[in-house]
Amino acid sequence: MNLNQKCINVARVVSAEMISRANSGHTGVALGATTILYSLFKDHYTYYSQEYRNRDRLVLSAGHASALLYTLEYMFGFNVSLDDLKNFRKLGSKTPGHPEYGVTDGVEVSTGPLGQGVANAVGMAIAEAQLAEKFNAQKFNVINHKVYCFVGDGCLMEGVANEAISLAGTLKLKNLILLYDSNSITMDGKTNLANTEDVERKFKSQGWRVIKVSNGNSYFSCTNAIGQAKNSKKPCIIIFKTKIGYGTKYVGSNAIHGKPLNAEELQALKDNLFYEGDLSVPSEVREYCYRSHRRSKVNYFKWEKQFVLYQNTHPDLSKEFLEFFEIPHINFAKICKGKFKEKNSMREANKVVINQIANHLKSFVGGTADVMNSTMAYIDGGGDFSAENYRGRNIHYGIREHAMVAIANGISLYFGLPSFVSTFLTFVNYCIAPIRMTAMMNIPVWSYLTHDSIYVGEDGPTHQPVEQIAQLRCIPNYTVFRPCCTTELLACHSIAYEQMRPCAFILSKQELEEQDVSFDDAKKGAYILAEDENADIIIFATGSEVSLALEAKAELNRMGKKLVLVSVPSVEVFERQSAKYKESILKRGIKKRVAVEASNDPVWYKFIGLEGLMFGVDKFGLSGKGSEVANYFGFNKQNLVEKIKNL
Amino acid sequence: MNLNQKCINVARVVSAEMISRANSGHTGVALGATTILYSLFKDHYTYYSQEYRNRDRLVLSAGHASALLYTLEYMFGFNVSLDDLKNFRKLGSKTPGHPEYGVTDGVEVSTGPLGQGVANAVGMAIAEAQLAEKFNAQKFNVINHKVYCFVGDGCLMEGVANEAISLAGTLKLKNLILLYDSNSITMDGKTNLANTEDVERKFKSQGWRVIKVSNGNSYFSCTNAIGQAKNSKKPCIIIFKTKIGYGTKYVGSNAIHGKPLNAEELQALKDNLFYEGDLSVPSEVREYCYRSHRRSKVNYFKWEKQFVLYQNTHPDLSKEFLEFFEIPHINFAKICKGKFKEKNSMREANKVVINQIANHLKSFVGGTADVMNSTMAYIDGGGDFSAENYRGRNIHYGIREHAMVAIANGISLYFGLPSFVSTFLTFVNYCIAPIRMTAMMNIPVWSYLTHDSIYVGEDGPTHQPVEQIAQLRCIPNYTVFRPCCTTELLACHSIAYEQMRPCAFILSKQELEEQDVSFDDAKKGAYILAEDENADIIIFATGSEVSLALEAKAELNRMGKKLVLVSVPSVEVFERQSAKYKESILKRGIKKRVAVEASNDPVWYKFIGLEGLMFGVDKFGLSGKGSEVANYFGFNKQNLVEKIKNL
Repeated sequence: MNLNQKCINVARVVSAEMISRANSGHTGVALGATTILYSLFKDHYTYYSQEYRNRDRLVLSAGHASALLYTLEYMFGFNVSLDDLKNFRKLGSKTPGHPEYGVTDGVEVSTGPLGQGVANAVGMAIAEAQLAEKFNAQKFNVINHKVYCFVGDGCLMEGVANEAISLAGTLKLKNLILLYDSNSITMDGKTNLANTEDVERKFKSQGWRVIKVSNGNSYFSCTNAIGQAKNSKKPCIIIFKTKIGYGTKYVGSNAIHGKPLNAEELQALKDNLFYEGDLSVPSEVREYCYRSHRRSKVNYFKWEKQFVLYQNTHPDLSKEFLEFFEIPHINFAKICKGKFKEKNSMREANKVVINQIANHLKSFVGGTADVMNSTMAYIDGGGDFSAENYRGRNIHYGIREHAMVAIANGISLYFGLPSFVSTFLTFVNYCIAPIRMTAMMNIPVWSYLTHDSIYVGEDGPTHQPVEQIAQLRCIPNYTVFRPCCTTELLACHSIAYEQMRPCAFILSKQELEEQDVSFDDAKKGAYILAEDENADIIIFATGSEVSLALEAKAELNRMGKKLVLVSVPSVEVFERQSAKYKESILKRGIKKRVAVEASNDPVWYKFIGLEGLMFGVDKFGLSGKGSEVANYFGFNKQNLVEKIKNL
Repeated sequence: MNLNQKCINVARVVSAEMISRANSGHTGVALGATTILYSLFKDHYTYYSQEYRNRDRLVLSAGHASALLYTLEYMFGFNVSLDDLKNFRKLGSKTPGHPEYGVTDGVEVSTGPLGQGVANAVGMAIAEAQLAEKFNAQKFNVINHKVYCFVGDGCLMEGVANEAISLAGTLKLKNLILLYDSNSITMDGKTNLANTEDVERKFKSQGWRVIKVSNGNSYFSCTNAIGQAKNSKKPCIIIFKTKIGYGTKYVGSNAIHGKPLNAEELQALKDNLFYEGDLSVPSEVREYCYRSHRRSKVNYFKWEKQFVLYQNTHPDLSKEFLEFFEIPHINFAKICKGKFKEKNSMREANKVVINQIANHLKSFVGGTADVMNSTMAYIDGGGDFSAENYRGRNIHYGIREHAMVAIANGISLYFGLPSFVSTFLTFVNYCIAPIRMTAMMNIPVWSYLTHDSIYVGEDGPTHQPVEQIAQLRCIPNYTVFRPCCTTELLACHSIAYEQMRPCAFILSKQELEEQDVSFDDAKKGAYILAEDENADIIIFATGSEVSLALEAKAELNRMGKKLVLVSVPSVEVFERQSAKYKESILKRGIKKRVAVEASNDPVWYKFIGLEGLMFGVDKFGLSGKGSEVANYFGFNKQNLVEKIKNL
């Protein structure tokens, strides 16, 4: 057996052994796709460290191939040890069940939910294209690497992948290479149970180059194909025909997909592959892999040297390059001063703010799902990102919400910087899966979600959000803002920016009254907007309902009632305040407690308690004038006053 | 001008007028796609009434073409009046902003969120294929109609549509015809901003027939193309090249997409189209359309006659056909008696129940997103639905969660009967958009969502649901069940079945203890499972946390504490009970209040109030053994006892 084949077989045995020891994991892909990923690591994948800006990016969209990834990382000298492999899938290990961003060297993004990795990779390829276009100079290709994405049959069936693939073709992202492990088997059986499409033709119809490898077990064929793909003038997919569970008696069957091998089966595998070790790698193999991986080190040092030359030759450009990754301080109150109208819709005001951010943060890019004119999330003068203009700062994602957010996750991860997306709040349902990943990876992808309530009106219940704010607020590590005026909006942006958090901005379509609000108060997430002495009623309100609550308060005051009105631009920000501050706002001593928000979020019971009075919307909306719909749901002063005075 | 052209122009003017009067709506598509939909209504679409089983189905996936739809319905004698047209987009009208199921004659499904309509139509085509296969006999094609789906550029970019298109090709659904209004314009500009794919090639690669109509303004070309499509041996898409906003100065521009015309522009349109009327239809036109629509009436009466003959010739088969649509009474406690093991995982027990349902309800079909072996949602002996076997009751949706639910919505709407879907709870994020539509349309699509908490373990945070239960519970008109044992599971199924509601079943992967539960108590949604005299602590728990709470209670009892334990299989069902019953369970007098659920749902503050103690999960999960992860999050007896005793 030649050395490459030996390396491949060792990787197989080690991966299978890891999975068996953990008694959990995906043996099928680890044995089937070994040659593909080995060839990539051996001859192509250039990775020195997470800090090396011109490293290749590898996205394991089929995240269940994690055992194989970790094994190869160990063999090729990444920061993964034999002990790490032994702790596969154990609590607190560096080798979790699916690759997790920030946990393991070389893992650029958390994957597991199928298909999203393809969109993450498209995002990285967009970011690479932009960087290359902006900063490469003659003879100085400071950015010129590849984005590899490993996918299985499952990934390619998912809508999010199809959305991203179509956009990648449109944008002609030639730096993007999909490595498709085509074993024709999914969890429930043969792929053709549910899918008979001609993948080659389908990709070609979307502007992709297609390379086919009939024997995905041949190192020579695999490495050659990847070599060809690197020279493609279009995004490229390599279709590797492979055999799931190669080397076991379950080869080619769905039975092996998620099955750890037992002792006997493991022995049979070793016999079949002529390798008797267990969780160890022969020094011959390791040295061979290490040697090949020196390629990355050489590449890095060469790049560093080249970069010094680049700085000498192109001092301005190289300075801009370095500045691109810096996050300047922004004084939001200052930069937006005098830029708003007397009355503003929050979407309109938001446009002012993001344009100011874009002025200061040169790396700030984003886009919408074909609703730019409605959500107004657009960087004026930033240009449109297209195959002809990789400098553009506005990305036309098309009507593809799911891919939009997953792509933005990729862009943010690539730059290590914020990126924005935008659509109508009601359509956040199409992209809540990648928003979960934004939150899980703790990255600053900001979702500007407009048309934020039943006030949307005529477009009817499908276009009127009701439960979406609640669906976002309950995502762990996610911050939701719903500002009531421009000062609150600025405070929210300032929190998101300073803390570089995953956030959503819930923005009104309609104009809202300006309120007399302190910027610093608003930054606490909840604060007292108005308070009567000896108040015995407390009202919590957000967004467009704040002015409604204020009107009701005035009327109730006229009736001799005493109230406190708390504005809550962000429940999550408020919950991060000190116990003492929270107590001073919650005022638990007050028994008559009210919350007003045109949404269906039980989180308000945390504020108003068991006996509290909730003004929310617990039904789907209606088609009609916004004001009439609001009336129908009791969102008018009269109704509030009536109910509150009878408390 | 010939009469057909006149009809088309009248439809244009009436639609534009409706939108202008409402000062809201989508003029672009109403003027651009008129000839396509007119040709369909004029010569092909066979619709007598919602009760006619062999009617064609029309899905307006591009739901913003509603004004045009209502106009044509009026012209062709559907149950839509001129007054209805005048009330377009008004509160309570029959002509809402987007088509709403149950509101307007001929509207088979609510649409508006783009792309989903394609999947709804695929569901209807699957249902039609099954019915035809099961019940047609030689010379008696009692079911042999078409499913038409009107789509725009937006629909075809959405992932959900791409998923559904791929599956339709695999299943060779020749009864399905997509009418693609290809105007190359979307809200933000030219379609090629974000999409340059070769639609013809892409569809062909997925097993579709493609027909192209270069002039979508020609009645003759349009009607001919539809005629050809009806004879296709594969699912067929007709690509009509059209001009958005035809007849206005904005023709071919995105400016007209959602713009009502002003008086002057409306006059110019009338001048251009040589039709001077406003919101009226000349009798000549109306008579011509009526006459053509008699085709549908004739078709229906012919079918009725044929059906009598069918009943005489095939008495058993026709009886089965009629019985297919009946919903038999099911005594769940009885039919499942003795069928469970001593200890059951809820997914396993659920399989027992759905197989019993399937035995009694012959129309019951469903499927999973390639996780049949894991979620166990499978009808044994029901066969697999495929191009070769349209009788199969188990649908392999592939790894396409979004399309899965939208297709199931289509199946359920077509049959007027329940259908099920299944995936892991964490992946409900991929399909929460169509679940919203399930709830909005109030149809019995049941989602069996397994692997319901952090106990999933090794697969890590991406596979461990945390916020998903909350995200489902806050959807209006949706019922979520999380049973703790088989008796509760049966009670939940019995509620879903008797009330034919949109529901989700949250089911454990791991085995749970059987509890001593009364079926009738469980049907109340929440009930007292155990109670000490003079209790001063109340605990609410669901699913796998019920036995944990019971253990904690026993330990606390040994310390002399007195408690009530309430099991809550469904918050929503409980909330529908009488005030008196709710009071008897909530026991507001008890001040020490606790909730235990391995999820992040603030709804529990409705039960425990401001000062309550919540045992939930407010962070993402971890990769490790299920029990270790649970311990990490404090889900063990010791921690519960410790915290509760210190209340």
